Amino acid sequence: MTGARRSAGGVAADDSIHIRNALVWPAWDAEPIRNGAILISGGRIEKVGRFTARAAVELDAGGALAMPGFIHAHVHLCQTLFRGLAEDRPLPRWLRERIWPLEAAHDDESLAVSARLACAEMIRGGTTGFASMETVRGTGATLAAVAEVKLPGLVGHCLMDETGGYRTLSVPLDDALAECDVLMEHARAHPWLDLAVAPRFALSCSRGNLIEAARYARSRGLRLHTHASEQPDEVEWVRRRIGMDNVEYLHVCGISGPDVILAHCVQCGPAEQALLAQTGSHVAHCPSSNFKLGAGIAPIPEMLAAGVRVALGADAAPCNNRLDMFAEMRLAGLMQSARRGPGVLAARAIVRMATEGGAAALGWGEVAGRIEEGRRADVILVELEDPSVLPDDDPASAVVYAAHPGAVAVTIAAGRILYENGEFTTLDIERLRADAAVQRQRLLRRAGLA
Amino acid sequence: MTGARRSAGGVAADDSIHIRNALVWPAWDAEPIRNGAILISGGRIEKVGRFTARAAVELDAGGALAMPGFIHAHVHLCQTLFRGLAEDRPLPRWLRERIWPLEAAHDDESLAVSARLACAEMIRGGTTGFASMETVRGTGATLAAVAEVKLPGLVGHCLMDETGGYRTLSVPLDDALAECDVLMEHARAHPWLDLAVAPRFALSCSRGNLIEAARYARSRGLRLHTHASEQPDEVEWVRRRIGMDNVEYLHVCGISGPDVILAHCVQCGPAEQALLAQTGSHVAHCPSSNFKLGAGIAPIPEMLAAGVRVALGADAAPCNNRLDMFAEMRLAGLMQSARRGPGVLAARAIVRMATEGGAAALGWGEVAGRIEEGRRADVILVELEDPSVLPDDDPASAVVYAAHPGAVAVTIAAGRILYENGEFTTLDIERLRADAAVQRQRLLRRAGLA
Repeated sequence: MTGARRSAGGVAADDSIHIRNALVWPAWDAEPIRNGAILISGGRIEKVGRFTARAAVELDAGGALAMPGFIHAHVHLCQTLFRGLAEDRPLPRWLRERIWPLEAAHDDESLAVSARLACAEMIRGGTTGFASMETVRGTGATLAAVAEVKLPGLVGHCLMDETGGYRTLSVPLDDALAECDVLMEHARAHPWLDLAVAPRFALSCSRGNLIEAARYARSRGLRLHTHASEQPDEVEWVRRRIGMDNVEYLHVCGISGPDVILAHCVQCGPAEQALLAQTGSHVAHCPSSNFKLGAGIAPIPEMLAAGVRVALGADAAPCNNRLDMFAEMRLAGLMQSARRGPGVLAARAIVRMATEGGAAALGWGEVAGRIEEGRRADVILVELEDPSVLPDDDPASAVVYAAHPGAVAVTIAAGRILYENGEFTTLDIERLRADAAVQRQRLLRRAGLA
Repeated sequence: MTGARRSAGGVAADDSIHIRNALVWPAWDAEPIRNGAILISGGRIEKVGRFTARAAVELDAGGALAMPGFIHAHVHLCQTLFRGLAEDRPLPRWLRERIWPLEAAHDDESLAVSARLACAEMIRGGTTGFASMETVRGTGATLAAVAEVKLPGLVGHCLMDETGGYRTLSVPLDDALAECDVLMEHARAHPWLDLAVAPRFALSCSRGNLIEAARYARSRGLRLHTHASEQPDEVEWVRRRIGMDNVEYLHVCGISGPDVILAHCVQCGPAEQALLAQTGSHVAHCPSSNFKLGAGIAPIPEMLAAGVRVALGADAAPCNNRLDMFAEMRLAGLMQSARRGPGVLAARAIVRMATEGGAAALGWGEVAGRIEEGRRADVILVELEDPSVLPDDDPASAVVYAAHPGAVAVTIAAGRILYENGEFTTLDIERLRADAAVQRQRLLRRAGLA
């Protein structure tokens, strides 16, 4: 509306940026600074507080909130092109009738468009980093698209070698790990991009696959990203087949620890919560997806009390149908108020999950998630003067419960302006629109769903 | 982004408007018309379909979705200025510590600003009508503000004569009804504005008050609007004091029927559902508020199966914290998927509640809620080409699960353009921002909460 606007300068990665006239909220546990400023240089935060400076790019925030960008700790970029194609199905049918056939039908072009579309939506909504789980083939195309868009991310290559009757997505472990070697080199050629090893979930992988995936990841310094304890049925199947609960089984296979992201963890009781806390594993809580697929409500206040590290994520377009951190933060709060009563999960604790919690899950605990000198410059400007946010002046409740992606004026990731007042700097939105329509049609035809 | 833009013309109420190049979705149960057009004249829909025409105002929708505007069947305009001021409190504390003291501290100026702020947010998000419950004094100021903004609405004057220890909001019935006579004349001087009689809830009114309110409303042709069966505690108190359940008690007092809106109805079992259906009463379902205040999940699929008429509403800024129909539609679906499984409440049924269901609740069943020749021209343009909606081409899932207020390009109510691509035609947003800050501070001081 009014507010944040750039008065001069370009968008090159190395340009210094001076944000002034902002309500600077450096982190979830910090107090906001009125009329604050941020100086960014070489992709890093150089100074935060009340000061004047000059830089190549002068950004007058017009009183907008400047806060750390959001980090989605669990998304599937490759599924963005499936938005609206898998409505009203429980998880098993959702997977078998739609997601798996569509993933199997992807080619490099459709994967690239799907990734760009996800990045556009996330950037528009103030996201400055993500951890994704892609599919079993073509992750190179996804990496290339993300590198071009310049959104920091941890792209997960999916491993599956047990897919029941659905063989198309089954890939032998050796082939998958050889692919990971290539992908890792590809990712590491770009700043703030890395590869994660992503066994899909306990039952889609053999035990050997899980154990080897963990060993492989540790030998390369790669993070692990999987799904765990999403649905009651799934927990029951794992118990029946393995004789253990999800988190316990993954732990036994080596998939636990500070380098591991476990998406969902809806069905975790006290013993599994204790194991998560003890191993320092990161839970990626996905509120909208858990509701849409009928999984239930993850016991987040209990997890936090037990010392579990929790982050937030949108999961995927066909089970959400947004990649919108405002929607996830809001529902994360609302669902716990419904479950245990108002106030059981404070707005600031939710902002922590969406920023610092995400950074920690992605291995950026020391470099992102807070606006502090020396950290990576991941900063968003949010218009608290939007009529839908006014006149709330507590940034936590404003951001968690009132604001929506339309209130984001500027998204800066790693010191680069990726979005500013309607304009994307690394994405051609008109072309993306046209490409999305074409690629979706082709994908549906290839999947036999046209 | 791109899309809908006006190529010529003004915004006077009587100007004819020709919308072309739209995906026209005339109603929740109709099929969308590609490259469709709508001709509006004298505030009414003159023609819908595929045709060419000329009008004073030419609107090229650029492929955007043209659908009926949303109708909030339960909001409190007077509480919009309290956004973010009553976080993390269960309903009784929420009322006594914040809402009641703040309502009691309102004056005409703060009421007008609060109403304008609510209207701005609703219009921005594609709302073309609302049923509100205001406070016990100053409803004239609210009516004047709404009349100025020209948003169609049913403004409820609140009745309370039993407020426990909290006497400031208690008004004798005769005084309240005398005020209603004045307010009714005031409202009816404006097109598409009317007054509702709004006893707050069962326990805040004496039995005589409820009975007389119903008699009074019927004698004047006014609708009734109240809260019912929101919280388990409230239901228990009503049972203990009255010996009946909420809906039953209100029915005995005359507060049931096609001219009655009952907000919430979260705790209604099969007997009350049958009574709601049999009397033709309208339920205003408020998903976000029900979660935020810990009320629970209303049994909407059961109510629809029983034949109950259901509409949607945001309730109020301090218990939501949005007045955003996209948020309500989305949570209405998600909460039922969580409760009973995916698919139990179809996206089209949710759009019905948000449009036609709201129109019926407000007494506009024959005149609004659908884009049909002769009906009032309440039309919104929603950008399905936004990266957050692409490439879903089913308008129902796109609107319910993916879109957000930022995707609304144009809001037309009663044939008048109220919002178009960032510009409000009947509201001065800059002034509203300044007024909101000032009035909020004054209100807090008067309420002793500064």
